[in-house]
Amino acid sequence: MLDTEEIRLDQALNRVLSEPIVATEDLPSFTRSTVDGYAVRARNTFGATESLPSLLEVVGEVVMGQPPSIEVKPGQAARMPTGGMLPTGADGVVMVEYTEELDRRSVAVSRSVHPLENVIQPGDDFRAGQEVLQAGTRLRAQEIGLLAGLGRTRVKVRRRPKVAIISSGDEIVPVERKPRFGELRDINSHSLAAMVAHWGGKPQQLGLVPDHLATMQAKCEEALTRGDICLISGGSSVGSRDLTLEALTSFEDSEVLVHGVAISPGKPTLLVRVGAKGFWGIPGHVTSAMVVFHVLVRPFMSYLSGDSPSLEQGQPVRARLSRNVASKQGREDFVRVRLREEDGNLMAEPIFGESALISTLVQADGLIGIHRHAEGLYAGESVEVIRI
Amino acid sequence: MLDTEEIRLDQALNRVLSEPIVATEDLPSFTRSTVDGYAVRARNTFGATESLPSLLEVVGEVVMGQPPSIEVKPGQAARMPTGGMLPTGADGVVMVEYTEELDRRSVAVSRSVHPLENVIQPGDDFRAGQEVLQAGTRLRAQEIGLLAGLGRTRVKVRRRPKVAIISSGDEIVPVERKPRFGELRDINSHSLAAMVAHWGGKPQQLGLVPDHLATMQAKCEEALTRGDICLISGGSSVGSRDLTLEALTSFEDSEVLVHGVAISPGKPTLLVRVGAKGFWGIPGHVTSAMVVFHVLVRPFMSYLSGDSPSLEQGQPVRARLSRNVASKQGREDFVRVRLREEDGNLMAEPIFGESALISTLVQADGLIGIHRHAEGLYAGESVEVIRI
Repeated sequence: MLDTEEIRLDQALNRVLSEPIVATEDLPSFTRSTVDGYAVRARNTFGATESLPSLLEVVGEVVMGQPPSIEVKPGQAARMPTGGMLPTGADGVVMVEYTEELDRRSVAVSRSVHPLENVIQPGDDFRAGQEVLQAGTRLRAQEIGLLAGLGRTRVKVRRRPKVAIISSGDEIVPVERKPRFGELRDINSHSLAAMVAHWGGKPQQLGLVPDHLATMQAKCEEALTRGDICLISGGSSVGSRDLTLEALTSFEDSEVLVHGVAISPGKPTLLVRVGAKGFWGIPGHVTSAMVVFHVLVRPFMSYLSGDSPSLEQGQPVRARLSRNVASKQGREDFVRVRLREEDGNLMAEPIFGESALISTLVQADGLIGIHRHAEGLYAGESVEVIRI
Repeated sequence: MLDTEEIRLDQALNRVLSEPIVATEDLPSFTRSTVDGYAVRARNTFGATESLPSLLEVVGEVVMGQPPSIEVKPGQAARMPTGGMLPTGADGVVMVEYTEELDRRSVAVSRSVHPLENVIQPGDDFRAGQEVLQAGTRLRAQEIGLLAGLGRTRVKVRRRPKVAIISSGDEIVPVERKPRFGELRDINSHSLAAMVAHWGGKPQQLGLVPDHLATMQAKCEEALTRGDICLISGGSSVGSRDLTLEALTSFEDSEVLVHGVAISPGKPTLLVRVGAKGFWGIPGHVTSAMVVFHVLVRPFMSYLSGDSPSLEQGQPVRARLSRNVASKQGREDFVRVRLREEDGNLMAEPIFGESALISTLVQADGLIGIHRHAEGLYAGESVEVIRI
């Protein structure tokens, strides 16, 4: 797991807590009214109705932000703003809708309240000493709000994983260069960097490397220096893949952990451990690179970030498949789908096409995985869609 | 709608295009192989089987990134890496799995290919002159990749909306101050800022303002200068709300557009137009503020951002309600829910509790809305969950 850093609260959105947060005080710290009305002794309202209201003496008004100086004695009431502190003696608040002030000194209450009605008490939110957030929590707006409520201006979080990104291949040119005939602009560096950033990492774009061993070794070494995780995409052809493998295994203390995975697209994926770092070799086709990122690299990033498994934004959504999809057994097939609403149901419509084409990804909203033992899925089946 | 700005591609993730993108060239720009194998004339493989392979003469090897100098004539084949350019004469590629090189000059092909098999052609992705992305598209990783593929290093997008945020109330103190008895720390500034940032806006935190007219007017004026949209939260009590209304309507060319909405929590919401800007008065309870943000302010931000309605990350997810929920008619009730998986179904479990308590939001993953004509929802019903 990555080390931690202390950051300002206003920078903490979507970061992962590295410490548990314990309430140092009760929240709220005093008994408050949740409505506008009159603070009363509940017992003095028992039996009150519109035809037979309780008449109470108004002894004053609670001022926001100040402990009230007044006391509510039997038969008395105090004007109460929402959020104000309950005066001594009072144990409930009658909503203003059920009252009528007869003059400045008396109010008629036409509905009874039970003790503690329309108030929140110290600790109703959280008690002093209670663990309110666990380490590993990804901070959303509500957790940021809670930290503010507890007076935390700074918070300890896991460092964001730095992900070094290289594109390889003799046919690839940088985006700013006009490709010559037979060349193509680098797409994967940019789409991988965007995915890394979207999922909470810090992309380090290292650019291109040709299919040349020494140059590749030097570039991979730079990646290992700069990244917590390293990605090299490209090398769709056998020769190119072999070269990547040779470059990565040339490092001291390196070990091939994965050499080919049973998914499609994305089969020729490589994972080499170099020292304490993971170096992923990702196939060059745009779709393969995206599938491998979501299925393999993203969980790896989450783990390094100390993210606890939770129903976060990236959770798959359920949809119904709009038509039959065939699949080869022996591998998990990932199929691009477009999501659309139909009669209130979310439908996943498969998009077919070469995995080298980015147009199919631009049309797609997600991926569905088909189990390696399945021969396909039927129209109408419920599927989990990984949002892309 | 907001004006536009031109930004670098590596800053463009999740931004909204303000211009349509037209392909200036075919993508891909040449006929490429999608597999490793041999470029052939398809007709020379017709009828080839394992027992009766076609024997072809190997005339050379295609090199990545270069237009091949070789030509494939009838009865010939060329070694072909994935992604390489098809040589003149060839119209398909046989996968290496179905070939056997007998010597450096000849290969046996044991399966037939049809013309254009295992190749992608110029324009298969996009044709020159085609509109590939519409204005209003929110840029995901795949659109970033496409822009890179088309050589766009810069792109025109809508400016992110600046959202000025004020918290009001005499009982509220800044997060860094220890509240005295009867006071509370400012939560809403921080949770609203986090929501604004999460949904693509630029929060401008202007801090606190007491319930004092002239001070409030000055602070609101600052908000109008700094924000494209302005939010003032707090003022849960009638007196405080009246003061906010008075401050906002004191500006020249101001008009009350909304004064109370039929939702719960969130009823005492205010929208005042001041000149060309919208100023929202948001109830002070943390839950009310969050509901009003998601239900009312977020669509307003989206509209200003030029966001086209689409199934983006914020789209509600469908779940099944775990138990009955009652609701009052005449208003849309928003109920906090926790999401959990049960037998492969996503369940939405209602969380009840005072809307002043942030603990209920920390437990929650979303909100469900109950129609104002409904008296509630039954357990097992399918509901749309707005992720929070």
